[in-house]
Amino acid sequence: TINGDRLWESLMAMAEIGATAKGGVCRLAASEADKAGRELFIKWCVDAGCEIVADEIGNLFAKRAGEDTDALPVVMGSHLDSQPTGGKFDGVYGVLAGLEVIRSLNDAKLSTRAPVEVAVWMNEEGARFSPAMLGSGVFAGAFSLDYGLGRTDKDGVALKAALVQHELAGIAPVGRKLGAHFEAHIEQGPILEAEKKTIGVVTGVQGIVWFDVVIAGSECHAGPTPMEMRIDPVQKAASLLTQFFTLAREYAPHARVTVGEIHSHPSSRNTVPGKVQFSLDLRHPEPAILQTMHRKADAIVKKENLCGAPVSLEEIWHSPPVAFDENCITAVSNAAAKTGYPFKEMVSGAGHDSVYISRVAPTAMIFVPCKGGISHNEAESAEPHDLAAGCNVLLHAVLEYAGL
Amino acid sequence: TINGDRLWESLMAMAEIGATAKGGVCRLAASEADKAGRELFIKWCVDAGCEIVADEIGNLFAKRAGEDTDALPVVMGSHLDSQPTGGKFDGVYGVLAGLEVIRSLNDAKLSTRAPVEVAVWMNEEGARFSPAMLGSGVFAGAFSLDYGLGRTDKDGVALKAALVQHELAGIAPVGRKLGAHFEAHIEQGPILEAEKKTIGVVTGVQGIVWFDVVIAGSECHAGPTPMEMRIDPVQKAASLLTQFFTLAREYAPHARVTVGEIHSHPSSRNTVPGKVQFSLDLRHPEPAILQTMHRKADAIVKKENLCGAPVSLEEIWHSPPVAFDENCITAVSNAAAKTGYPFKEMVSGAGHDSVYISRVAPTAMIFVPCKGGISHNEAESAEPHDLAAGCNVLLHAVLEYAGL
Ligand SMILES: NC(=O)NCCC(=O)O
Ligand SMILES: NC(=O)NCCC(=O)O
Repeated sequence: TINGDRLWESLMAMAEIGATAKGGVCRLAASEADKAGRELFIKWCVDAGCEIVADEIGNLFAKRAGEDTDALPVVMGSHLDSQPTGGKFDGVYGVLAGLEVIRSLNDAKLSTRAPVEVAVWMNEEGARFSPAMLGSGVFAGAFSLDYGLGRTDKDGVALKAALVQHELAGIAPVGRKLGAHFEAHIEQGPILEAEKKTIGVVTGVQGIVWFDVVIAGSECHAGPTPMEMRIDPVQKAASLLTQFFTLAREYAPHARVTVGEIHSHPSSRNTVPGKVQFSLDLRHPEPAILQTMHRKADAIVKKENLCGAPVSLEEIWHSPPVAFDENCITAVSNAAAKTGYPFKEMVSGAGHDSVYISRVAPTAMIFVPCKGGISHNEAESAEPHDLAAGCNVLLHAVLEYAGL
Repeated sequence: TINGDRLWESLMAMAEIGATAKGGVCRLAASEADKAGRELFIKWCVDAGCEIVADEIGNLFAKRAGEDTDALPVVMGSHLDSQPTGGKFDGVYGVLAGLEVIRSLNDAKLSTRAPVEVAVWMNEEGARFSPAMLGSGVFAGAFSLDYGLGRTDKDGVALKAALVQHELAGIAPVGRKLGAHFEAHIEQGPILEAEKKTIGVVTGVQGIVWFDVVIAGSECHAGPTPMEMRIDPVQKAASLLTQFFTLAREYAPHARVTVGEIHSHPSSRNTVPGKVQFSLDLRHPEPAILQTMHRKADAIVKKENLCGAPVSLEEIWHSPPVAFDENCITAVSNAAAKTGYPFKEMVSGAGHDSVYISRVAPTAMIFVPCKGGISHNEAESAEPHDLAAGCNVLLHAVLEYAGL
């Protein structure tokens, strides 16, 4: 079994990097804080006897050698980047649980047949650079390296420039064969807590589509301009938002509709904006329903374009629903059964690096509960004993693949 | 008569300061560009033999002495600050028309009984520091000096600090007696152009109320969080906006409802925002109707607060409808009649420095047409002959008060 106290201490030490006043973290991808977090992680891994490798998109690997030098590595991967107002556990948990597995193998002086690695995937959150899961996506060939390096943040800084600035990219080519990929993560939703289960055996991930919505208005004065002369993108936004949110009710209970970003330009109280932009995030576990939601969003925009401020709806990302590898899922449920934690199979509502890695390696995930199901929030919280449980399940699932 | 070509050349020279790529200007109040614009203006005024005085809130006065040293000055005032994406004429026209009047008096070697001044009021737009008409408001005692100096921009910079940074404040105390105040301005609306009138004799200004609307959400993940568990400020914003805009239809044709600023925080695609803020600008020429609109906005918020994300509606500014001075209005229509331009009486849809100055001095305004009624837009445009006409009317109205 792993050392739950050491895992907790590592999580708390990492949470100091980019710590926010409200008890969360802000460690945006490829920022100075992300660099500092990775440096702490590298120090820990070197102390644990690992070899460190970074690839060209800034994915980081800590490798513990196996007996069989020809065997493909078994990888425990997740991310260290956070939301702008994120929590201490999202992503970090999977990375530090991986480190804790290696430390525990070291303590027990156990060597495995296959190498065991911890992966830190670059820019999982999609908060600084969209889309999400970019490093793992490039690794898996879902995106080209050029596409990944060329993504820009709100200030127009390309990922490539940010990687250079903080010396985060390595020379290893992106992508290689892996034996298996296991990712431990907090659930980020309320199910495990509500059903009093310690372990979620994750069988797959729902589908996600991201859009940029741009409404073009015509700037004019808030006072003298008659209402009927205005081309007002805010009035149009109100109508669009109302209709987009009805899609969630129409396809309840599993549909999700989220607008995380909205802003007007120029931002001036007494000027009708020339532009309103907002993001639209649609999700559903069933491909056919997600497609229908997408079609209906298109139809809403088409109808709205018959009069008033013109709207464009641009799909910028589509991550189709994913089913994980049967054998990896079985390895996780076997590990949960063996360690004696109550568990249930479930589908992830969030995207994870495992989504893309599952395209190139047998993959499954392990969820643990988080308080109130709250994530992407500085108040994100999880119990040490649950985090230790998930790490134990990770250890056993990995050992089933890596072999002793 | 004034020199229309010289007026036009001065307008075009001023438009180079803070010029934008799209042909407009960005000369936010108390910025480096505002400083540069004022320096050019000061140079012109010194060349025209004026004495320059600045007061503690950064209002600037160019004084041409009169024969009677005891007479109160007749002031031609407006502003040089602009919207973030503003035009070449809004405010600037009134200031440079004033300068052109002085230059024309010089050319004709005419001396007036009362002193004649040009005033550049600080922060009229309200785009950088809210509320609008701040310098003239402090001058007229509508706001205290401390209130004015303490207003902050989006980056938290106080007007006081911005004045110090660019050496824009003087030592003259704010406020003194004026003989009269005349303000020439583009209409910023479509009426004069539509009715083919060159001069608007402005009899008053409609009422304006500004609000800050803040909706408090609870940050959570866009994927795993069930819709019914969300406290989503964007869903609430959609409902509020829709209802606020119906007030414009309910009190048509004179009611105006504008939301110029809207943004979410934190701005991340896959996080339900913890906060959405937007501005709300309500206007109507009749005090009773404006009050009813205000009451209905309160009622909308009260109803929305029965469930979901909590909303606050804070009134940050109220500029009641204003009627200008009968004698000044007559001076303007006499001047228009004498100079032979087609004119009509009208109420201003925009707030102007004259609103506050009318509390402490007899005041009226002169409007000239602008293309398509468009203002607060980089494409703002006006015809040289209309601008010259308004300046001629200004000259004659001022002379009626200042005496030859
Ligand atoms: N786990 C997580 O927060 N992933 C970000 C991608 C998503 O939006 O689901
Ligand atoms: N003239 C002008 O643009 N004034 C700003 C104040 C207002 O919003 O009406």
